[in-house]
Amino acid sequence: MEVGARVDIGDPQPTSPSSTPSPTRLPNRARAGANAITPDIFSLMHYQRTGDRYIVRFESGEPVVEPLLEWLAANKIGYASLTGLGAVREAKVSYWNGETRQYEAHALDEQMEIVSFVGNATLKEGAPFLHIHVTLGRRDLSIIGGHFNGGVVHPNLELIVAQGKEAVARGLDEACGLWVMQLHERS
Amino acid sequence: MEVGARVDIGDPQPTSPSSTPSPTRLPNRARAGANAITPDIFSLMHYQRTGDRYIVRFESGEPVVEPLLEWLAANKIGYASLTGLGAVREAKVSYWNGETRQYEAHALDEQMEIVSFVGNATLKEGAPFLHIHVTLGRRDLSIIGGHFNGGVVHPNLELIVAQGKEAVARGLDEACGLWVMQLHERS
Amino acid sequence: MEVGARVDIGDPQPTSPSSTPSPTRLPNRARAGANAITPDIFSLMHYQRTGDRYIVRFESGEPVVEPLLEWLAANKIGYASLTGLGAVREAKVSYWNGETRQYEAHALDEQMEIVSFVGNATLKEGAPFLHIHVTLGRRDLSIIGGHFNGGVVHPNLELIVAQGKEAVARGLDEACGLWVMQLHERS
Repeated sequence: MEVGARVDIGDPQPTSPSSTPSPTRLPNRARAGANAITPDIFSLMHYQRTGDRYIVRFESGEPVVEPLLEWLAANKIGYASLTGLGAVREAKVSYWNGETRQYEAHALDEQMEIVSFVGNATLKEGAPFLHIHVTLGRRDLSIIGGHFNGGVVHPNLELIVAQGKEAVARGLDEACGLWVMQLHERS
Repeated sequence: MEVGARVDIGDPQPTSPSSTPSPTRLPNRARAGANAITPDIFSLMHYQRTGDRYIVRFESGEPVVEPLLEWLAANKIGYASLTGLGAVREAKVSYWNGETRQYEAHALDEQMEIVSFVGNATLKEGAPFLHIHVTLGRRDLSIIGGHFNGGVVHPNLELIVAQGKEAVARGLDEACGLWVMQLHERS
Repeated sequence: MEVGARVDIGDPQPTSPSSTPSPTRLPNRARAGANAITPDIFSLMHYQRTGDRYIVRFESGEPVVEPLLEWLAANKIGYASLTGLGAVREAKVSYWNGETRQYEAHALDEQMEIVSFVGNATLKEGAPFLHIHVTLGRRDLSIIGGHFNGGVVHPNLELIVAQGKEAVARGLDEACGLWVMQLHERS
């Protein structure tokens, strides 16, 4: 482990609302699980709609995952692609181990650029579900990254959320143990 | 070479269909070239259209390039931007050497996150052509990447394919030896 | 600093037109500041509109930031998201230091893939403003990156510029010293 991070193995699919005890459509922040990243402030995401896209901004001290899940539910967004850039002062990032079929989560406690943020929002068992990967930039310009479990923004995070016309639900793929997008057509 | 990969120099522009012996619009998978990555299974990409975009998913064991080229041809997509995330268990990634004007291809044989997948689909001599760059995440969260020549998905790859209204053709730029997009306007 | 780059600390928000002495809407290239990257040629960006998006291509020897700012002004684009891939033969990339609240700029003088290019175009004091992050790929496939201050394309850079229906202005956030997007709604 080269990244100077604490490593805690496990925590599969932690961007799912079901990783909190109460996977309701509008989870109460107070019910966030013991492993949740603790924000400084209650989130008040800034956003603006343009066509089928939303421009979204998070402020310093805001977490990313929980407010975004709530906002997706409140805006009834059943599918969206996500792209963005910004910076965090801490983050949790995972690697999916093909042998154990488990995510290995790394808590990163340092100021880092979010150099790329690529993902999507779908529905898992009726509730918003996030799948996001990030590259994070360190002071020497080196880059680390992987599956994004969450983080605390500092000073800024800017996203484009491009909504689809229909919701996309995920179903459990027994072969890999992951929830995968259920799409209508096959080539 | 820090990445523990086998290195085989050469293989310029290998994401083009013309790198296989028969660059037809719907190449027969059985005719794939000797350097092609061998998939476990015949590809059955999952997809769904939403507006001018397609949501696309590849399953474990599927290659990326050949099925995507076939699907682009079958859906008569003459231009699209591509963005995505997922994971591969092997990949071929290249660096373009400005002195030799050749791609240097690296075969990477390990389970890696696709942390970013950014590219486009155009037409080269009438057939679909892919230009894709990837960052790949390793178990220690370190990132490697470059020009994507192909890979075998495991367990999942999710793309957004945003189709343009008109096809974009590529033409050979003699100065750099690459096929570049022919666009109508200049600033 | 592992990247073999010259380091010059400072240069906050250098992708802003105001980092040149004359932040007019259509800055004269001859007035570019002393720290500007010097292109080989006057820029003649290639582009083509498709729906609400522009496909844009830069040629070898072209800088990225100044021509893009001029083109945004000429096309009256008050908001757009930017995504792309390509390669540069030199670039300037920064890390935002949370303690000093300053960008630390690194001049990188080598041929590198632009593996991801994610950003947006907004307005700052009425003039186009760019916020872009890049991952850059080196010959050994290692990746460096961060906040993109500019670079010289070689041999090619391909962008998708997705225009919004309304302009988005930036305002100074006193707390972090950065200009942040002013969006109409809050969750």
